[in-house]
Amino acid sequence: MFSAQACIQHIIPKTRPDFSREGSAFAPVNIALIKYWGKRDTELNLPVTDSLSIGLRTLGTRTRIRWTEGEDNISLNGELLPSDNAFVKRTRQYLHYFRPNPSLGFIIDTHNDVPTGAGLASSASGYAALVLALNDLCQWQLNKTQLSILARIGSGSASRSLWNGLVHWHAGTQADGMDSYATPITHQLPSLRVGLLTLSRKTKPISSRLGMQQTVHGLSLYPAWKPMVEQHLSRLQTAIAAQDIAQIGAISEHNALSMHATMLSASPALCYFLPETIATLQTLWQARSEGLACWATLDAGPNVKLLFDAHEEAAVTACFPKVSIVQPFG
Amino acid sequence: MFSAQACIQHIIPKTRPDFSREGSAFAPVNIALIKYWGKRDTELNLPVTDSLSIGLRTLGTRTRIRWTEGEDNISLNGELLPSDNAFVKRTRQYLHYFRPNPSLGFIIDTHNDVPTGAGLASSASGYAALVLALNDLCQWQLNKTQLSILARIGSGSASRSLWNGLVHWHAGTQADGMDSYATPITHQLPSLRVGLLTLSRKTKPISSRLGMQQTVHGLSLYPAWKPMVEQHLSRLQTAIAAQDIAQIGAISEHNALSMHATMLSASPALCYFLPETIATLQTLWQARSEGLACWATLDAGPNVKLLFDAHEEAAVTACFPKVSIVQPFG
Repeated sequence: MFSAQACIQHIIPKTRPDFSREGSAFAPVNIALIKYWGKRDTELNLPVTDSLSIGLRTLGTRTRIRWTEGEDNISLNGELLPSDNAFVKRTRQYLHYFRPNPSLGFIIDTHNDVPTGAGLASSASGYAALVLALNDLCQWQLNKTQLSILARIGSGSASRSLWNGLVHWHAGTQADGMDSYATPITHQLPSLRVGLLTLSRKTKPISSRLGMQQTVHGLSLYPAWKPMVEQHLSRLQTAIAAQDIAQIGAISEHNALSMHATMLSASPALCYFLPETIATLQTLWQARSEGLACWATLDAGPNVKLLFDAHEEAAVTACFPKVSIVQPFG
Repeated sequence: MFSAQACIQHIIPKTRPDFSREGSAFAPVNIALIKYWGKRDTELNLPVTDSLSIGLRTLGTRTRIRWTEGEDNISLNGELLPSDNAFVKRTRQYLHYFRPNPSLGFIIDTHNDVPTGAGLASSASGYAALVLALNDLCQWQLNKTQLSILARIGSGSASRSLWNGLVHWHAGTQADGMDSYATPITHQLPSLRVGLLTLSRKTKPISSRLGMQQTVHGLSLYPAWKPMVEQHLSRLQTAIAAQDIAQIGAISEHNALSMHATMLSASPALCYFLPETIATLQTLWQARSEGLACWATLDAGPNVKLLFDAHEEAAVTACFPKVSIVQPFG
């Protein structure tokens, strides 16, 4: 077992804190079409399977960071958070890896375009933006592979939030995780649209981190997840190369529902669905049976994201008036 | 592959139709604690796994049957059904196995205590009552093992509806299914209560029969179902012997949700949940976190059945005012 501390020290160059500098960065939210669900190493966030996502380009996290001689000082969306806040505690624990000595702190000002903890992957864009901002602050000049590894140690899916467009996170096989990072996929899907349906802004009752552990350990249907993902990934790559949005949608929906199925089969069961989630899915399936070319994906939360081609935009809006539509490829 | 016709002919003695006789029988509905989900033979309804159920004693199907020289004449709950009705078509196909010659028909009058096709296993008690009524009409004097096999060929779970109390359906391994029948379990659980919450009386959009096929074939999490059921069954048998209702409830709930998980992971997904199903489950889980000793099971439909001890009856009724409570052991 390798420690996160050792892995990070292996990557980052030794630099002196420059109190006059400020680092800043933006990282996009990403929506996984093939989900990251289950870890082979919980400290390093090494996944059981590859995953594949799409960056939302215009939605994400913007972070500014400076050094301080005092304690960490973390603001989220303009509000200074107390030191006993869960988000602050987790962020500070991660920041420990980057302090030249324990008495040095960081002043962080971070803004999310999406609600924190509502299954819209704010921790992915959050840790990606933090790593990019640290790289800027400390002038490490790391490459994207190195940055992806650092972001992964903060939050697994953050490894994918360093790029817009399609991104592939390779599970890797090494125990130190040095081969577990994301790479961008060159294919573009200019007509792909992502529709966001926020059914709840509440923080989810169980974090993805704990949810994964609960699903992977103990009796569940999880043993069938890995071979399924391998099939999904290979089919999705073919569909992406063919620009086949119907296939991309169908595979993504199958993958997302299967992830929720692994949770439902955990003991105790983990159910992120709300009644509104099921109502939305039933509406979608009914509309699809009547010809609407639209598919759903869901992360570890109750909210639904829609995948469709630009020419279905009016029909999707008619079916889901509250949908917020993103053009991931501009 | 053995045909249903050959298997049935192997079991039933040759008797002459007695037009003056009437056969009649009652068979209870059964609720599976370990579900039957997936067939190794679709014509003979041979299951992939064992299953274990509880008969509801007071709820079931009562059937009367007579011979006629004319066409079959089938009434359900006092209403004569047209010959193009799906229930009539399926019943007639089954009755073909028992006609001494193709021109002979049956007059059948059947009454269900539960809504047909709403996931309350009316086909189980229906085929069990039909087989028992045929045995009475034709005076075959078959034993319960033989009757269980005949009922199974009509509808898999009907093999379990010949007894009250706890019943174990053995999957068997033979290709002709002669070792795939149910047997009663002698243990009693006198304080066990079953609460029925009928959230929808609509016929379900996809029958269990088609749902199973959709789940078992194609890419899904189903491969992990069989080893899971084997573990559930062994743990449930231990819990039954110990009269441990909390364990019985927990295993049953885990098994039922895992069955729904296999459906959700099918392609296309099969989702019997309604928004009300999720609302009910979330209410239950919240109440359980506050101390209510009550567990849920669901068949292939949106309705929820509750399992609890008699001493929780008032608390369960307070939480679910519409619950209808059955005492399976009188």
